[in-house]
Amino acid sequence: MLSTSLSKMSLIVLSGQSYTGPLDMLLLMAIANRFIGFKFFFSTDIDDGSGFYATWFFQFVFAATAATIVSGAVAERTQFGAYLVYSTFITGFIYPVVTHWGWSKTGWLQNQIVSKILFVDFAGSAIVHCTGGIAAFVGALVIGPRIGRFEDGAHDPNPQPGHSTPFAALGAFILFLGFLAFNGGSEQAIVGGDHAVVVAAAFVNTMIGGASGSITAVVLNYCIAWMRGEQKYWSLLQMINGGLTGMVAMCAGCNVLHQGAALGIGAMSGGTLMWLSWATKRMKIDDPLDAFAVHFGGGLVGILSTPVFMNGGIVHWQNCDSQRANYICDLFEYKVFAWNLAGFITITIWSGCMSLIVFYCLKLVKMLRVSEDDEIRGLDIGKHGEPAYPIEAYGHGWSERKSF
Amino acid sequence: MLSTSLSKMSLIVLSGQSYTGPLDMLLLMAIANRFIGFKFFFSTDIDDGSGFYATWFFQFVFAATAATIVSGAVAERTQFGAYLVYSTFITGFIYPVVTHWGWSKTGWLQNQIVSKILFVDFAGSAIVHCTGGIAAFVGALVIGPRIGRFEDGAHDPNPQPGHSTPFAALGAFILFLGFLAFNGGSEQAIVGGDHAVVVAAAFVNTMIGGASGSITAVVLNYCIAWMRGEQKYWSLLQMINGGLTGMVAMCAGCNVLHQGAALGIGAMSGGTLMWLSWATKRMKIDDPLDAFAVHFGGGLVGILSTPVFMNGGIVHWQNCDSQRANYICDLFEYKVFAWNLAGFITITIWSGCMSLIVFYCLKLVKMLRVSEDDEIRGLDIGKHGEPAYPIEAYGHGWSERKSF
Amino acid sequence: MLSTSLSKMSLIVLSGQSYTGPLDMLLLMAIANRFIGFKFFFSTDIDDGSGFYATWFFQFVFAATAATIVSGAVAERTQFGAYLVYSTFITGFIYPVVTHWGWSKTGWLQNQIVSKILFVDFAGSAIVHCTGGIAAFVGALVIGPRIGRFEDGAHDPNPQPGHSTPFAALGAFILFLGFLAFNGGSEQAIVGGDHAVVVAAAFVNTMIGGASGSITAVVLNYCIAWMRGEQKYWSLLQMINGGLTGMVAMCAGCNVLHQGAALGIGAMSGGTLMWLSWATKRMKIDDPLDAFAVHFGGGLVGILSTPVFMNGGIVHWQNCDSQRANYICDLFEYKVFAWNLAGFITITIWSGCMSLIVFYCLKLVKMLRVSEDDEIRGLDIGKHGEPAYPIEAYGHGWSERKSF
Repeated sequence: MLSTSLSKMSLIVLSGQSYTGPLDMLLLMAIANRFIGFKFFFSTDIDDGSGFYATWFFQFVFAATAATIVSGAVAERTQFGAYLVYSTFITGFIYPVVTHWGWSKTGWLQNQIVSKILFVDFAGSAIVHCTGGIAAFVGALVIGPRIGRFEDGAHDPNPQPGHSTPFAALGAFILFLGFLAFNGGSEQAIVGGDHAVVVAAAFVNTMIGGASGSITAVVLNYCIAWMRGEQKYWSLLQMINGGLTGMVAMCAGCNVLHQGAALGIGAMSGGTLMWLSWATKRMKIDDPLDAFAVHFGGGLVGILSTPVFMNGGIVHWQNCDSQRANYICDLFEYKVFAWNLAGFITITIWSGCMSLIVFYCLKLVKMLRVSEDDEIRGLDIGKHGEPAYPIEAYGHGWSERKSF
Repeated sequence: MLSTSLSKMSLIVLSGQSYTGPLDMLLLMAIANRFIGFKFFFSTDIDDGSGFYATWFFQFVFAATAATIVSGAVAERTQFGAYLVYSTFITGFIYPVVTHWGWSKTGWLQNQIVSKILFVDFAGSAIVHCTGGIAAFVGALVIGPRIGRFEDGAHDPNPQPGHSTPFAALGAFILFLGFLAFNGGSEQAIVGGDHAVVVAAAFVNTMIGGASGSITAVVLNYCIAWMRGEQKYWSLLQMINGGLTGMVAMCAGCNVLHQGAALGIGAMSGGTLMWLSWATKRMKIDDPLDAFAVHFGGGLVGILSTPVFMNGGIVHWQNCDSQRANYICDLFEYKVFAWNLAGFITITIWSGCMSLIVFYCLKLVKMLRVSEDDEIRGLDIGKHGEPAYPIEAYGHGWSERKSF
Repeated sequence: MLSTSLSKMSLIVLSGQSYTGPLDMLLLMAIANRFIGFKFFFSTDIDDGSGFYATWFFQFVFAATAATIVSGAVAERTQFGAYLVYSTFITGFIYPVVTHWGWSKTGWLQNQIVSKILFVDFAGSAIVHCTGGIAAFVGALVIGPRIGRFEDGAHDPNPQPGHSTPFAALGAFILFLGFLAFNGGSEQAIVGGDHAVVVAAAFVNTMIGGASGSITAVVLNYCIAWMRGEQKYWSLLQMINGGLTGMVAMCAGCNVLHQGAALGIGAMSGGTLMWLSWATKRMKIDDPLDAFAVHFGGGLVGILSTPVFMNGGIVHWQNCDSQRANYICDLFEYKVFAWNLAGFITITIWSGCMSLIVFYCLKLVKMLRVSEDDEIRGLDIGKHGEPAYPIEAYGHGWSERKSF
């Protein structure tokens, strides 16, 4: 369990050392081509006139987000050294290239190489979450399921619950709060102009999309159990994951969606979570936190639904008659959708293949998975020497008090 | 225990769907009368020139606060469906009407219908906390005490402590931090003019009032045990509740109080908490988190003491001789006090009666309380299917390490 | 365990009542001399034209930080009353004098009494953390080790681990986040001028310094075990403390360091943590959280390394030939280093001696340490009457659910 925390800290460490890519967002062709930037490594030659520090920090936390998604999918069976290696690769190479494509003026998705079409991904549904989500899927696939998760012949996986549901709820609240900063902060300004309005709209849509995803997931979960004749429960953990999926889906367009669209997209996210989670289990891939279903599923819904529902999107399309006055009946909205689809597919292939190389190499050199003994006893004891709840730290804990 | 978390999330969900009332704060009589607003439901016809999104989000979190207060009072015995229903009513109807009264220029408390008297409640001592507090009281009254809480003939209730005091302390820190944003943020601006000074004053007073409430409650608790000849303890939980009560009391006037007044009002809050908590137990009403004593008690102290102690308030009153030069010896300060009192009484009656209807209807249709079996086993198992601390997730947890 | 929380709250309370010193930062000789301010006690005679409220709140949280450092070093054996007394002294007298020296224009370290040399301590490596760190050392020295920590003849101390490693990790994340506000916020402005750039630089350096400290500590810990032939572990708790030490070291110069320097200073911090922690244990001083090693060690590294590595510091020194044109070959950079060294030594002596008086007096009047019985049973039960994990609050906690 501690490994999750460790991996988070390790990537902070590593991205602090190796992170340089995103700076080229602000620079021109002289320092980057359409595929990748090639300057300013290790903070050399910086000039803060271009907002280097703020951009560095902004991109640092986004890179950390992309990498930390993976830790949930490979939890409870991965070596500490493997976390260090894959976090370095994701934050130092895989993600910076993707963010260059989608958020730098010189990147191919933003360089208007086809007409004047721009990739629409305000806060990274595809750039951050599909990248992290597909890497999580690949990681879980390569490392294999936890011991005892799938038994031969059994239809459903064995439950392997986390050790504390209250901690899961606390983590969810922290993530929910963080998503407001993540999505609202993607405007990168709040004083002056319309920035404050955009930030507020991003907050509102993120909240509504997450709420809609939450309630959809929890109701679907209840109804599925009811249809299958099983015991019905209101699942807190599905509510958490549903909310996260909805917020992930909001990343792409939270600045340009009406609240009604946010509500609908959030509901789609809740459904996508359910079937991707089911499909992952059916493929006998063990993703303990449903990181793939949450982040890739939410990213998929967000990146494809935003061009459809956003202000100026397909559903707001005016027919060619009314447009003919301006001679622009060029199906612009559909081209944006196609461009977003192209970006989504490319990002998924790039991030998936690169992750596959990293995880497969780690497996080849036997750095990926802990020993069976360590896995059964728990990594906190075997690898970190610090039990999560040291038994000698607990006394009797009785209460001698009457009135409370 | 999970129900608390669930209810919080559910109200986010529901208020996301149904919340529309507060917008009318910014609008004129054309879209609202003195009692209630009647436009902009479900984000229709919005125009962000009036700051719709920011206002929506601001009021959304305040509405969520009002509703979430109740969850503490009905904890450990309430059906999940009941949370959904009452949260919808409070965030969708009861609270929006109150906030319209007190914070909209067209609401009757702010419409200067009597002379030029305005209701003084900067961040919602009465509007948010009395509303939530009286609803909590009504909820706990209607649903009845937890099994085993009050035994026949026994003088004091049986202790039914929470499962983790460290979690309670963590929650307290989160709430304390949140109160700074709650009270400081009520200025709704920070750049330009004197906004930053008001925000800073609200921070300072909120902190001092909370600190004063904390230490008053913990010292009173110690002294009462000493006078009754019982074992004396320094109670962390009373310190938490005292701090919260003091911060609630600061809501009404944190922008217009001197630090000395904040100190005194905080101390009054600590005392109010103690006797309201005692009175609730004596009435055999089971409020596990003292939500009524904290929020209604703090709100009561804040809304009534602010007109007395604020800058320009009763204690700063200059006698009529000095005022006669300007012919304004009209007891203005006393009228403000009377108007705050009128507002407090009206809000309490409105919120209490409406909550009574909601909870009584829920009880009538048997949607309010879980079965005795579920209550004893815990809602996390019976209703949510996810034990808080799944026993199979814990290994032996031994430590094999010598040097630490 | 609860005592930590209690002490934090108590100091909020007390500093709310007694805190007045730092205001003189903004004032002139009329209200302060070089040693101490002498006006504005208890918020009297305030005039917010000088930003009183914002300064109060800023200094309040810094004073609370200085005092709360101590609670970790005296944890699990200190009376509640002792927390109240020492927190009052540190926040009300010891720290305000130090902050006056280092951050007020009239203080002797900032008053240009020697040439034009100013003390360089942006966010308080020495002013806050050395003050708190040396007080923590003195507290742990005077109160003595926990029962069973050091056995006669034994070489290493017995491990007395905390009750929850996940809670430690959560606390670390909260502190890491808080450090960004602590260091970035020390610029005390963000809108206008170059303030935003400085805040961003402080964020970046704080993050890099912390990351570097983290990884240095965890790798050193691993390597030391390897060299001594012991079982090797990747220690989460060392990673936490290493990160904190690195961030403490960043306080002094996070606004004026290049990222490469931050990386190096962070690494020095990780090493300093390890040997100070080892030295503390060897002196048979029991500092359960390594508060001295983290805060004093980090502060020491920060205050001495900043004049060396900062922009315009010793390593950027240009030889006298190039300076002679301007006749300023006066070894200015070395004087800054000497002045920082003088400030560090003076602050350490002042804070150490004052803390010694406070803790020794507490010991003399037998208010410092709890009874042996209370210590063994745990303070939560004996002193606070509220067990951390009340045994009656736990049911069986079984899981009856198959598919998860």
